[in-house]
Amino acid sequence: MNERSVSRRRAIALAGVGVAGIAGAAAVGGALARGAARDEGGSAVEGAIAFTGAHQAGIVTPAQDRLHFVAFDVITKDRERLVRMLKDWTAAAARMTAGRDAGEIGAVNGMPEAPPDDTGEALGLPPSGLTLTVGFGPTLFRDAGGRDRFGIAAKRPAALADLPHFPGDVLDAALSGGDLCVQACANDPQVAVHAVRNLARIGMGVVSVRWSQLGFGRTSSTSRTQATPRNLFGFKDGTANLKAEEADLIEEHVWARPGDGPEWMTGGSYLVTRKIRMIIETWDRSPLSEQEAIVGRHKGTGAPLGKADEFEEPDVPSLPETSHVRLVHPDSNNGARMLRRGYNYVDGSDGLGRLDAGLFFMAYQRDPRKQFVPVQLNMSRRDDMNEYLKPVSLGLFACPPGVSGPDDYWGKTLFA
Amino acid sequence: MNERSVSRRRAIALAGVGVAGIAGAAAVGGALARGAARDEGGSAVEGAIAFTGAHQAGIVTPAQDRLHFVAFDVITKDRERLVRMLKDWTAAAARMTAGRDAGEIGAVNGMPEAPPDDTGEALGLPPSGLTLTVGFGPTLFRDAGGRDRFGIAAKRPAALADLPHFPGDVLDAALSGGDLCVQACANDPQVAVHAVRNLARIGMGVVSVRWSQLGFGRTSSTSRTQATPRNLFGFKDGTANLKAEEADLIEEHVWARPGDGPEWMTGGSYLVTRKIRMIIETWDRSPLSEQEAIVGRHKGTGAPLGKADEFEEPDVPSLPETSHVRLVHPDSNNGARMLRRGYNYVDGSDGLGRLDAGLFFMAYQRDPRKQFVPVQLNMSRRDDMNEYLKPVSLGLFACPPGVSGPDDYWGKTLFA
Repeated sequence: MNERSVSRRRAIALAGVGVAGIAGAAAVGGALARGAARDEGGSAVEGAIAFTGAHQAGIVTPAQDRLHFVAFDVITKDRERLVRMLKDWTAAAARMTAGRDAGEIGAVNGMPEAPPDDTGEALGLPPSGLTLTVGFGPTLFRDAGGRDRFGIAAKRPAALADLPHFPGDVLDAALSGGDLCVQACANDPQVAVHAVRNLARIGMGVVSVRWSQLGFGRTSSTSRTQATPRNLFGFKDGTANLKAEEADLIEEHVWARPGDGPEWMTGGSYLVTRKIRMIIETWDRSPLSEQEAIVGRHKGTGAPLGKADEFEEPDVPSLPETSHVRLVHPDSNNGARMLRRGYNYVDGSDGLGRLDAGLFFMAYQRDPRKQFVPVQLNMSRRDDMNEYLKPVSLGLFACPPGVSGPDDYWGKTLFA
Repeated sequence: MNERSVSRRRAIALAGVGVAGIAGAAAVGGALARGAARDEGGSAVEGAIAFTGAHQAGIVTPAQDRLHFVAFDVITKDRERLVRMLKDWTAAAARMTAGRDAGEIGAVNGMPEAPPDDTGEALGLPPSGLTLTVGFGPTLFRDAGGRDRFGIAAKRPAALADLPHFPGDVLDAALSGGDLCVQACANDPQVAVHAVRNLARIGMGVVSVRWSQLGFGRTSSTSRTQATPRNLFGFKDGTANLKAEEADLIEEHVWARPGDGPEWMTGGSYLVTRKIRMIIETWDRSPLSEQEAIVGRHKGTGAPLGKADEFEEPDVPSLPETSHVRLVHPDSNNGARMLRRGYNYVDGSDGLGRLDAGLFFMAYQRDPRKQFVPVQLNMSRRDDMNEYLKPVSLGLFACPPGVSGPDDYWGKTLFA
């Protein structure tokens, strides 16, 4: 079912799901609730994307314009504290994606001297299409020393195998990996930042921010309703991406199925993240003809080389052998496809007179061993674009299926 | 005159103003021009803010939602090259603020092997309210060794005096100062980033990026038409800011006047920038009552303490002596006021489990010696908020008056 379907916008009466310190339904509609609150009857809120469903929102949801992605280290050894935090996160996520605060701003439970249960910077802002998507990294199952940290090592999916080294990668370990991740996407960055910050606040003592990335412009379309955006090389990107409307392809390439691996991941998806710095100053000095040969598309129209329209099928054998479009095309990769969901980023400058800018690549898939890994190896070894790329961060996360309702929480299929 | 006035949206036929490598009017309206081009008769473009005028746009212009700010070092010793770049920048800025590309994407002047004169990532995007505002730092006039670099030392305004040290500042020199700055504001960050990147590209060999900052949410209103936004402390900020509609106050506090200093700055304004990291995790653990006492406002409504409505005048003597609102109020500063134009930022995380987030403060004024400096000294010494703030960057720039038309360029009053 399509994430945007109005029929999915059901009531999210999650308040009270084992939530300590998160205000319940009583706070809804109060003077401090941001935007129009979802009413008691569960009517839809303008601009809100349903939080519950068979799959997590934020995957096939048409890509919002802004990203705040965060990876956490779990700093507790206490499984119960971790599970309690996941329940608290779920309740807060249900509230925030519906355009509400994470918890009460004012006096909580008659304790006027308590810190507010919402940080406040999104008060008055609409839901802005916020989605929050959670994922579990390999290190949550077993740490670097091989210890089964939370009694879930046996449930680690084979598809969550450690990724190989890709030629050309210069990874910063502090910017890679993570035990947990949350992808916050919204059309207003303040709403995405607010959500991540409040989850970090709720997780105090249980998790610690490992790395975090803001993205300012989506680089892929995930729906036929969206125009194809441009990446920082100035080219249309994601023209041939999987689209939410392609239900059969989404089933085949995105969602883990029964029998694929452990049952708890059925309906989930595997996320690969990759921060790729682009050497844009060098790219900007290269001739247009060279840029187009490297990409395999025309810069202006976005059409495959030799074609006139963006959406024409490329004539793969006629493209330069080391062109990006040819190397990542399913025909060059045993039919492997992914749902890409990346964002442009600029992180200021690098102290050498250059902008520190590039692509924060994200791709969802059914099994990275058959999708991301072979495509990336093909690209790392041969793509002419590599001359202008410097991959600095890599992450892999198992994103569980969606939350079904008030008694469910992020990761219940794994922990319960 | 108001920057938004339709009557100001005149033709900007700047093409050919000493522009080497920037395509002229012939490229306008071509298949690659982004958005609707300004027509030959000079009719307004939807969503475009006029580039020409007595004052630079981007100062009293109602604050757009997104920022890309960049400070440059000038790396040439050649005054003529610097002036030529300022002319090229002016022409490109006029094009980009009108929703066009910085120059031709395709073959330029019959040279198919030349790099494109626009990087392409904003193709197809509307003008998005883009404004580009230039400023000159103290070091442009005289370098650290005291040398008159470009024959303009005698024209350095007294108001562009080096700023004093402010208690509590822990400035990173690499993130402070700069010979030139450009403030790019837009409602689409991709448009702001595109503009800065193309100016950097045009300036290759003349300037080098010193530091650069993205901001994702404005923290001040500069017009009565705008709702007051919230900063990352979750409080409404800039309620009492100068507003574009307050013409007399703007004249008194923002624009340099004849007799204030060197004639070339008449109609210009002085910009102070300040990157202030907020220790949000500590703030988030402090009680609501304490937060409100520190700020001097109620968190929910934004009203001054003891008042019900955001726009009520605070009863200054009744506020806590070390509250922020009291310390920065004109009554506490000999009537000094500034036009604040800051943005929230998140630069990822700090490696210690915390988000690297805060405020990129920008304030425009007639004379920093009488406005920013005394207010900041007052605040640095006494404001209880300092416990949660870590100022890491400081900049001061003289922003010249606006560009009047095709024969004018950024800095002509200084260099011609």
